[in-house]
Amino acid sequence: MTRAAAPLPAIPPDIVSAGDYERYAEKMLDPRILAYLAGGAGDEITLRANTQALEALTLIPRVLADVAGGHTRLTLAGEALSHPFILAPVGWQKLFHPQGELASAQASAVMQTPFAVSCMATETIEAVAGQGGPVWFQIYMQPARADTEALVRRAEAAGCRALLVTVDAPIGGIRNRAQRAGFALPPGMVAANLPPETAPPALKPGESAVFDAMMRAAPGWADIAWLVGATRLPVFVKGILHPDDAARAVDAGAAGVMVSNHGGRVLDGAPAAIAALPAIAARLNEAAPILFDSGVRRGSDAFKAIALGADAVMIGRPYIWALSVAGALGVAHLIRTLREELEITMALMGCRTLADIRQSDVRRP
Amino acid sequence: MTRAAAPLPAIPPDIVSAGDYERYAEKMLDPRILAYLAGGAGDEITLRANTQALEALTLIPRVLADVAGGHTRLTLAGEALSHPFILAPVGWQKLFHPQGELASAQASAVMQTPFAVSCMATETIEAVAGQGGPVWFQIYMQPARADTEALVRRAEAAGCRALLVTVDAPIGGIRNRAQRAGFALPPGMVAANLPPETAPPALKPGESAVFDAMMRAAPGWADIAWLVGATRLPVFVKGILHPDDAARAVDAGAAGVMVSNHGGRVLDGAPAAIAALPAIAARLNEAAPILFDSGVRRGSDAFKAIALGADAVMIGRPYIWALSVAGALGVAHLIRTLREELEITMALMGCRTLADIRQSDVRRP
Amino acid sequence: MTRAAAPLPAIPPDIVSAGDYERYAEKMLDPRILAYLAGGAGDEITLRANTQALEALTLIPRVLADVAGGHTRLTLAGEALSHPFILAPVGWQKLFHPQGELASAQASAVMQTPFAVSCMATETIEAVAGQGGPVWFQIYMQPARADTEALVRRAEAAGCRALLVTVDAPIGGIRNRAQRAGFALPPGMVAANLPPETAPPALKPGESAVFDAMMRAAPGWADIAWLVGATRLPVFVKGILHPDDAARAVDAGAAGVMVSNHGGRVLDGAPAAIAALPAIAARLNEAAPILFDSGVRRGSDAFKAIALGADAVMIGRPYIWALSVAGALGVAHLIRTLREELEITMALMGCRTLADIRQSDVRRP
Amino acid sequence: MTRAAAPLPAIPPDIVSAGDYERYAEKMLDPRILAYLAGGAGDEITLRANTQALEALTLIPRVLADVAGGHTRLTLAGEALSHPFILAPVGWQKLFHPQGELASAQASAVMQTPFAVSCMATETIEAVAGQGGPVWFQIYMQPARADTEALVRRAEAAGCRALLVTVDAPIGGIRNRAQRAGFALPPGMVAANLPPETAPPALKPGESAVFDAMMRAAPGWADIAWLVGATRLPVFVKGILHPDDAARAVDAGAAGVMVSNHGGRVLDGAPAAIAALPAIAARLNEAAPILFDSGVRRGSDAFKAIALGADAVMIGRPYIWALSVAGALGVAHLIRTLREELEITMALMGCRTLADIRQSDVRRP
Repeated sequence: MTRAAAPLPAIPPDIVSAGDYERYAEKMLDPRILAYLAGGAGDEITLRANTQALEALTLIPRVLADVAGGHTRLTLAGEALSHPFILAPVGWQKLFHPQGELASAQASAVMQTPFAVSCMATETIEAVAGQGGPVWFQIYMQPARADTEALVRRAEAAGCRALLVTVDAPIGGIRNRAQRAGFALPPGMVAANLPPETAPPALKPGESAVFDAMMRAAPGWADIAWLVGATRLPVFVKGILHPDDAARAVDAGAAGVMVSNHGGRVLDGAPAAIAALPAIAARLNEAAPILFDSGVRRGSDAFKAIALGADAVMIGRPYIWALSVAGALGVAHLIRTLREELEITMALMGCRTLADIRQSDVRRP
Repeated sequence: MTRAAAPLPAIPPDIVSAGDYERYAEKMLDPRILAYLAGGAGDEITLRANTQALEALTLIPRVLADVAGGHTRLTLAGEALSHPFILAPVGWQKLFHPQGELASAQASAVMQTPFAVSCMATETIEAVAGQGGPVWFQIYMQPARADTEALVRRAEAAGCRALLVTVDAPIGGIRNRAQRAGFALPPGMVAANLPPETAPPALKPGESAVFDAMMRAAPGWADIAWLVGATRLPVFVKGILHPDDAARAVDAGAAGVMVSNHGGRVLDGAPAAIAALPAIAARLNEAAPILFDSGVRRGSDAFKAIALGADAVMIGRPYIWALSVAGALGVAHLIRTLREELEITMALMGCRTLADIRQSDVRRP
Repeated sequence: MTRAAAPLPAIPPDIVSAGDYERYAEKMLDPRILAYLAGGAGDEITLRANTQALEALTLIPRVLADVAGGHTRLTLAGEALSHPFILAPVGWQKLFHPQGELASAQASAVMQTPFAVSCMATETIEAVAGQGGPVWFQIYMQPARADTEALVRRAEAAGCRALLVTVDAPIGGIRNRAQRAGFALPPGMVAANLPPETAPPALKPGESAVFDAMMRAAPGWADIAWLVGATRLPVFVKGILHPDDAARAVDAGAAGVMVSNHGGRVLDGAPAAIAALPAIAARLNEAAPILFDSGVRRGSDAFKAIALGADAVMIGRPYIWALSVAGALGVAHLIRTLREELEITMALMGCRTLADIRQSDVRRP
Repeated sequence: MTRAAAPLPAIPPDIVSAGDYERYAEKMLDPRILAYLAGGAGDEITLRANTQALEALTLIPRVLADVAGGHTRLTLAGEALSHPFILAPVGWQKLFHPQGELASAQASAVMQTPFAVSCMATETIEAVAGQGGPVWFQIYMQPARADTEALVRRAEAAGCRALLVTVDAPIGGIRNRAQRAGFALPPGMVAANLPPETAPPALKPGESAVFDAMMRAAPGWADIAWLVGATRLPVFVKGILHPDDAARAVDAGAAGVMVSNHGGRVLDGAPAAIAALPAIAARLNEAAPILFDSGVRRGSDAFKAIALGADAVMIGRPYIWALSVAGALGVAHLIRTLREELEITMALMGCRTLADIRQSDVRRP
């Protein structure tokens, strides 16, 4: 798998939004890698719904408001952030750029943007943290608690500021687009932070790979409570769409929840993440911060998510497009672009600070 | 009518869903046969609605649920089934594969999936049953009860486990796509289980072919009651969209009803079958099992139908695409794929068994 | 203006619906004439809405009903009709076929279908009536009542059975598609039943062609009452979309009203005619028959209109497509096709007669 | 930047609506200028919504009403106008035609249509006013009140009849389409009525260009009150979408408000302007006139806006298309076309005057 074109040394002048990075990335990446990146589960109904549902929300501007001196600062899990964008965990970043996660980490450091490093990173958490930016670590619960605990200790030692535990993908989604394209990890590409994979135990006749293997190894609520107790870091539970699950995560000690449908990559048919947000915000009633993920392409999308109850938003594919096109420079430029879009949206909506963003600012059609 | 390409000896790696079989079948079948298979009645409004209405339903996943050891088993009309997919009656299968219904029967045997053999099969019910799978038999009420009774006896003798009586097509739908394509049965293709067709009586001047011929020969509710009394097999009534008709079928002794619009092939303008399901489920209130048919393309569609009140689902065009592309192997692979999709959907929805699937799992947009 | 192709002597086997006639006509007519026929007012929002709104209605079939011996007969304004389709007034039929209205009249005679001859016909009402079919006459109120009265007398003398007075087009619609195509009546094509047009009086400076000329000449409610009193024929008022206007027409002595938006050719932005029908039916409460016009392409559309309160339906563009393609034979074939579609729809809906068609048979999405 | 084609000396016969001018302009303008003209903010969701929301409204015609002698006259801010169309402020008109604003002014004079000259005009307000038509002047509040006051005095001296103060764009919208196209003002094109631009003060490290520069310079409500007091002309506040802001503008002494989203060019995600109109009309309850802007392409759009509470409407892109295609002649022809469309709509809706237009004439789907 080779790229159709090398990453660019400078940002072309016609890249002015996340969608422009997508357009470039589509021409520059190997089609199989592109299918892996762009594709969602099944017929991609949820993938499309994520962006469509955000687009359908309207914002009624307010004029002549005094917003001079406004800002996008917030405090999240005890950390002061200059803006509410976070780089979502995306695995295997060397698929997209020779420097992989190190390039993303450089952008994170420059922009002081938290970078949630994936459990499936192709660089070690220590190397990523060494770039100097604020780093979070995303984990999948490992079959053995000892393995999970080892990961937690490494993340703590490397200076990670929070843990994200992904709970919505005990089974890989049915990624038909990637399957049709024949995507597979290239030889030699390994998860730099995980022990070598061991073969799963063989199924007995009549057993289901889903129910008798994958789901037997899947974590439960007790594992979340264990994880919270096993680390001094705040633990965010990633992949919540149901209010009951959000409440249960907080009960289990989570520092916050991430409303996400995994970018439409796991259960096709799941609602747009933004559609699930209001009920979760109502249920939690500010008991814990909410991160929003899945479908953010614009600063105005962040505004909409915050209006509906999010404290911050994660971006996934957009920064991977930027990484693919122009490495660290692209990622930093994308973050700056999103932040400017958010600032302009806030200014036009008459909001000086994130706390000024009101639910009534957003209308459903 | 010759195929554009012979069936494949193996399943290409880019076939990973029912839709992929459709894509291949479109290239491999004679265009007239394809028009017959793919087409619906009239302007195909109902045909499109079937899949669109299923796609529009959303599923809110539940995380961290304990579903280890789950399964898709059910009991239907006294039979233990390993999963809720049934091969719908589709006639003239030698149009699609040289082995016709025998290939479907082989897949049915391998996958232990009931195969509802069409009254218009090109193989005898005895030959189909001889393949060893669970066989049902679909009948149209014949103009003479003796002919119907003879069919019933053959089905019983061949070991069929249930009868399906189709009631929604006393008149063939207006299949404009097939008409425009000039589709006609090839010479020598006959219904292997029926007596030779006799010419209908001539109409008198001013008489209507619809009201004075076809509908005079059409069965009524009394015929259903007679059929129930004439066989020891469970009788399912196929083609119900109105709650009153569902209740009346049960009153007439039916073992269950099949909610179906005949794949959009009879009355264009009929609602999507899934749209008709909830009111029927509410009316029957578990008085009899409900089979769902028309539009199922994914395991998640089966999940949605079960959530809305179905006990099992029938698949029609999808297995015929698979039959066309790769014969028995294709059909078996398709069934396995659908089953895996259902298992994954169940696992992600926190459902260990079909009984755990709740109506509240499905949302309308 | 010459046709791209002469009318066909026989109906091609791939013409099986009104839409097929359209497809053929698009290839056979001069593009300017086609633009005149196919186009609507303005941006054609209403034109599209007419068919879309009919397509969006769903019909829930009823099974196993006894409809043997059913029929599509009705009595309308004292006339027994074998089916509820009426040929709508369409002017200038020699644009579409060398025989013009005579060909339509021949089909009308063969199928015993009322033919509402347009005021703008290119054949005399006497010649049309001479073909032996049931003929209605459509009139626009002429600026001078004496001219209107003369038309009425000719229609009565020629044996016309009803008058249609069109009230929705005191101003020609803004037919942008026809304008862009440069459509104009060919030299020598004249309205065979009208006196030669006289030039309208010149406008004074500052006067509006709309308010000070066209609308000064336009008829009012008093003219309708006068017309009703001036003829022994039943008078239908054509072009009603508002319930108040429907009631007022009946108060003025109309034999019935025609719910129509003139095929989307007058006011772009008017609702789909079918959307306007239920409120009018509720207001009239069977005080007078309702004819439905605008958007009927299928027998099922007639069923839907009847369910929502119509007694009969008019078809316009569809029979002109058929006329263009195959003359009288085409028109007769089209009428037969629509009638069969209606019969099949009725049979599948469990309706023996038009009176059995219930409002509850139709659902809005 | 050069045009692909010179403006036409006469109006082609296939230009019969605003949309036709658009079609021509797309072929005649430099692609970069076209991107600037046609483009909106961001993903152009709001741009599309403006026209779609107007199209979705339906009008139920009334027949046989007496509208002879009707007219489209109105009085607005003390001025008698012959029709409710106003040319919206559009800057840099020499981009579109060599004569720039002078050509628009000539059309304004011929058609007696108010022309709201943009603050960013390429001709002086005195030269524009010298063409003899009714002229308004649009201003952006300048950083220094003395500069604003100087503009006001010039406008008063030139005979302007009203001021429009634009409040919805303290920050230029994110015009991604124009950015991607590389649009920039050609050398030598300057705002003829403004002092030369001075460079903005440099930002200190960590400051936001949005919150610490642009929004510090942005006007507030006190500036509106000041402006009202500083001129004898009526002041309209342009760019209101929220009812609270409309009420506040009137409280500040505005002669009226303009409901507008700046043609979709500022905040992508803002609602269609027509969607915002009813709540504003309800809030103002006739306390001040309302101008409607954004999306008007047809006389029927003006009718819809007036039905929902507007007193008059502004057209923007449509007259710039006409200007680009055929200069003053094109603009005059466009105004005449819109006026005729409005007259015809009124006549068919049974409205003699603008005051007869009722809210109930418009239905939402």
